[in-house]
Amino acid sequence: MHRVRVKVVEDALDANETIARANRDDFDRAGVTVVNFMGAPGAGKTSLLERVLDGLRAGVLEGDVQGSLDADRLASLHVPVVQLQTSQGFGGECHLDANMVRSALPSLPLEEIELLVIENVGNLVCPAEFRVGEDARVMVSSVAEGADKPLKYPLMFRACELVLLNKIDLLPYVDFDVAKFTERLHTVHPGVECLQVSAKTGEGMEAWHQWLARLPGRRMIEA
Amino acid sequence: MHRVRVKVVEDALDANETIARANRDDFDRAGVTVVNFMGAPGAGKTSLLERVLDGLRAGVLEGDVQGSLDADRLASLHVPVVQLQTSQGFGGECHLDANMVRSALPSLPLEEIELLVIENVGNLVCPAEFRVGEDARVMVSSVAEGADKPLKYPLMFRACELVLLNKIDLLPYVDFDVAKFTERLHTVHPGVECLQVSAKTGEGMEAWHQWLARLPGRRMIEA
Repeated sequence: MHRVRVKVVEDALDANETIARANRDDFDRAGVTVVNFMGAPGAGKTSLLERVLDGLRAGVLEGDVQGSLDADRLASLHVPVVQLQTSQGFGGECHLDANMVRSALPSLPLEEIELLVIENVGNLVCPAEFRVGEDARVMVSSVAEGADKPLKYPLMFRACELVLLNKIDLLPYVDFDVAKFTERLHTVHPGVECLQVSAKTGEGMEAWHQWLARLPGRRMIEA
Repeated sequence: MHRVRVKVVEDALDANETIARANRDDFDRAGVTVVNFMGAPGAGKTSLLERVLDGLRAGVLEGDVQGSLDADRLASLHVPVVQLQTSQGFGGECHLDANMVRSALPSLPLEEIELLVIENVGNLVCPAEFRVGEDARVMVSSVAEGADKPLKYPLMFRACELVLLNKIDLLPYVDFDVAKFTERLHTVHPGVECLQVSAKTGEGMEAWHQWLARLPGRRMIEA
């Protein structure tokens, strides 16, 4: 008799990882490349999507604690938007996890798109700890938040393949040293790509659009 | 025989509430009034403390995921600063809870102060769900974050006795409608006090200082 022994290693594959891999398999079958898009509240995530999604075969999964403000903003674009509210608990979840994303899969028109952007809940801590089945992670940091953020939230700055430094139109009005920020960023995450952008003035939007346009079919992180 | 029946109601008093009350009792015995100070990453919490603590019989408990940047900044003030790092887990805790604050009690010179400010981890979700034994909660929202934040993170804006609208020096350079913000704030939290401030220019610092100076001995929330 053929016997296979599967050793259960408690911390090797937790439930979130298992579900994230299942999501990834489904995305792969549908030929959809997935970006997990993260950043602090008010860093400009939705604005950065508004500026670049038109013209891409993209869809958006919006994670929000409450309300549909971000999903409403994106509704004017010609891309499908599915909203995932996390407010089931007392104050809402502070991040999306693989199971929440899985619950949205039936609502996502995967056959119509080749790129799915998952806009995570505004938070610099927990979203970095939960894979959702993505191929790449992008995080946004605004110059208004200060140049110390990579040192204060190193896991988030480490857990991404691209950093968007947003609101550079505010540089003349805030105390923000771009060279120091970049040095700190590369201390916690050597070599990570960083684009300086402004969703307001449009600066850097072409580079950000190109980065997304080049993504379909690419896999920047392993499942 | 005297018998007392204590019914255990599972969700009536969870462990965090129990410990928060114990903290509160200890603070009361020491005659220390406690503020839980919350806000998103980069909203300006540390800067707002730097501007007003000198001259108060105050101490600070700094909660940070990693590093000691904020504690170092406050070290130049003439107030005791105790740092609480939350990075024990994988990516660090996204909030302070009552037990973490309790672990810092022996390091706090409670007999020397009458006001303790607990600077929470930068996050607009979870800190609002965990009482730590405080008498009042203050949250900071920066105009750079956008005027939609009260609707997107209602629990945080509801779970405070004072809102500081910071970085008003940036108002000429950002799309931020103060009237709309205030209306939304009062929709989720009718009547809450809101001070418009700028840690950079000093605007509103006198009012913020006065608010803190009036606090010792007051109890704005029940344990």
